[in-house]
Amino acid sequence: MGKAKLPAEFPQFHERGDGAEVWDVNGASYIDLMCSWGPIVLGHRDPRVESAVCRQLALGDTLNGPSPRIVELAEQLGGLTRHAWSMFMKNGTDATTVAVTVARAASGRDRVLVARGSYHGSAPWCTPNRTGVTAADREEVGYFEYNDIDSVRRAVADAPRGVAAIMVTPFKHDAGFDQAMPSSEFVHGLQDLCASAGIALILDEVRTGFRLARGGSWEAFGVVPDLSAWGKALGNGYPIAAVTGTDALRQAAESIFATGSYWYSAVPMAAAIATLDSLDELRAVERMTASGTRLRAGIANIARTHNLTISQTGPVQMPYLSFDGDDDGAIRERFSVAALRAGVFLHPRHNWFLSAAHTSEVIDRVLDRLDDAFATVARDVSRSLAESR
Amino acid sequence: MGKAKLPAEFPQFHERGDGAEVWDVNGASYIDLMCSWGPIVLGHRDPRVESAVCRQLALGDTLNGPSPRIVELAEQLGGLTRHAWSMFMKNGTDATTVAVTVARAASGRDRVLVARGSYHGSAPWCTPNRTGVTAADREEVGYFEYNDIDSVRRAVADAPRGVAAIMVTPFKHDAGFDQAMPSSEFVHGLQDLCASAGIALILDEVRTGFRLARGGSWEAFGVVPDLSAWGKALGNGYPIAAVTGTDALRQAAESIFATGSYWYSAVPMAAAIATLDSLDELRAVERMTASGTRLRAGIANIARTHNLTISQTGPVQMPYLSFDGDDDGAIRERFSVAALRAGVFLHPRHNWFLSAAHTSEVIDRVLDRLDDAFATVARDVSRSLAESR
Repeated sequence: MGKAKLPAEFPQFHERGDGAEVWDVNGASYIDLMCSWGPIVLGHRDPRVESAVCRQLALGDTLNGPSPRIVELAEQLGGLTRHAWSMFMKNGTDATTVAVTVARAASGRDRVLVARGSYHGSAPWCTPNRTGVTAADREEVGYFEYNDIDSVRRAVADAPRGVAAIMVTPFKHDAGFDQAMPSSEFVHGLQDLCASAGIALILDEVRTGFRLARGGSWEAFGVVPDLSAWGKALGNGYPIAAVTGTDALRQAAESIFATGSYWYSAVPMAAAIATLDSLDELRAVERMTASGTRLRAGIANIARTHNLTISQTGPVQMPYLSFDGDDDGAIRERFSVAALRAGVFLHPRHNWFLSAAHTSEVIDRVLDRLDDAFATVARDVSRSLAESR
Repeated sequence: MGKAKLPAEFPQFHERGDGAEVWDVNGASYIDLMCSWGPIVLGHRDPRVESAVCRQLALGDTLNGPSPRIVELAEQLGGLTRHAWSMFMKNGTDATTVAVTVARAASGRDRVLVARGSYHGSAPWCTPNRTGVTAADREEVGYFEYNDIDSVRRAVADAPRGVAAIMVTPFKHDAGFDQAMPSSEFVHGLQDLCASAGIALILDEVRTGFRLARGGSWEAFGVVPDLSAWGKALGNGYPIAAVTGTDALRQAAESIFATGSYWYSAVPMAAAIATLDSLDELRAVERMTASGTRLRAGIANIARTHNLTISQTGPVQMPYLSFDGDDDGAIRERFSVAALRAGVFLHPRHNWFLSAAHTSEVIDRVLDRLDDAFATVARDVSRSLAESR
């Protein structure tokens, strides 16, 4: 998430946001295709969410325990996820870690399997950078390949004392790589394997939640996981994460220690209630799907006019763009800088995010601006081709 | 922090707070001696903090990166802590975990020592409840006894591959036990041991910060630790935690991966700036010390009039009360329920917290109400003494 991961031309400090637009500290404005790395799902400073926040602020935020908002939110989330209970926390990492702890408490087993390269948070057990992380932190973590059910079976067979949980993202969205949707064989293979071996299937919805579906992202497969981890879009920018789970895991969830000074804070819960209500009333998933489809088709068209071969992968609401032959990512970097200069904030190596504020009119403005960015990249590419001849 | 730890008579849902007063969902009001378990250091809904929050909310909270507030807050915090750099996160647990990771990155060593029974957060490596926690999670954690420097030396000697960090709270505030101030021998012994063995001394200020001193809680000993973990009072209830450290550890801090979706959010940083400003202008530490001294003297006096032998331990701003002969904590439980009925919200087994909103007038109202609670307990104690005769 740090500046270190973005080209030097990107702004370091950010001043404000409104709808689909953001301003940096120098007053430059951009159409925002990052949505604060996911949380902003209705648009920045959504009026309905802001009203709910102000009403709750007038009462109190961090009190000696939860407000009634926690019950309202848990009921709402239970209906959407078809899960029996909810726990709330702050970071997505809190949610993935609590989910793993619940699965271990339930099974009495230690081993947890994740797809190699999948991001599940920044705690020592899952951070992608092992600096300062010990071998013991990873001792009970095993790996499989996304979309390769045989590799999952092998990882299960390699765990002599059994597996507590398999954690997986709803689709493959590893930063720096083309995205991949899950195969039906993979999804149902995981479901069957977990059911037969008493392994908890944990769906890490932190990045995907409430953008792909009203409820769980694997609903289309008819799959309700044992546990789901939520964050980001849940509160439209207000700090909240959640774990939801099946009734069979309720007792395990009650048996663990999970707390933080702000985990009962009422304001982010009020924001989440308003966010979920608005997503529903706006039919936001359908909106984002329509806008994302328009964006994808438009980008494909522009790239063609500039003779650039590209790939666009993953769900249209969470776009990822790569350029043919751009193995070191240099073209994506130049494209992201050219887009920034043209007034579009996007990331060269991380998926982008659409929100309900990205109307077709906003998408058309994006496409207009990206035409300049593609032209710049096309000039660079043809120049370097000429030089290499 | 859950309901499970409080007697059944305590309210489960909380409606609002204002200054030193809180209301439960049934409309009952209490003078608040828990301050939301620490965060509320100026009083609930402090006008200055709320104004800063509203100003920042009008711009934006969670954007694509930090706002200028991060620089302002880091400079302010550096001045107070005499540390060279700051990192910001959400939970106190994030801060203690990041501090440990920085120390490991700096030293290339894995082992971390903590005092047995000290609370450093809810992550698997430190949670007090090991349900769902693996042996590997604790493999690199060693233990010593608080205030026993020889036990620290033994724990260091027991680590053949060296020790990365010793983490310690500024005073002993383990829930369920009388509190203890650190001995000068312990503090300076830790300082010397860490300096001579290249071990990072980490002061866990999450619970103590900005209540005991304007800056670091061991300033009175002339000790600036290598790293400090902050949370709770830093944002007067808004979700923010921090790690600050010496210049020698800057590079290690930059080398680790530490991020979360809301770690750059601007509103809690604006709240923290206003909180630190107010603490300074109000001379809040002196205020809380005066109020805490008044409370302690008043409670001693009331207990005496009811012929109850009590202990009051730890700093007066973070009171802890126990009753002579109350080995199972039953008297403290009854006292907390009697206090609740008399209109004072306090905890039977966790230290209490004062804020700058606890004026001498508020303390006198507390004492008036607690007189009833002590009378109830005194009747119970004399009845059970009579029964046991």
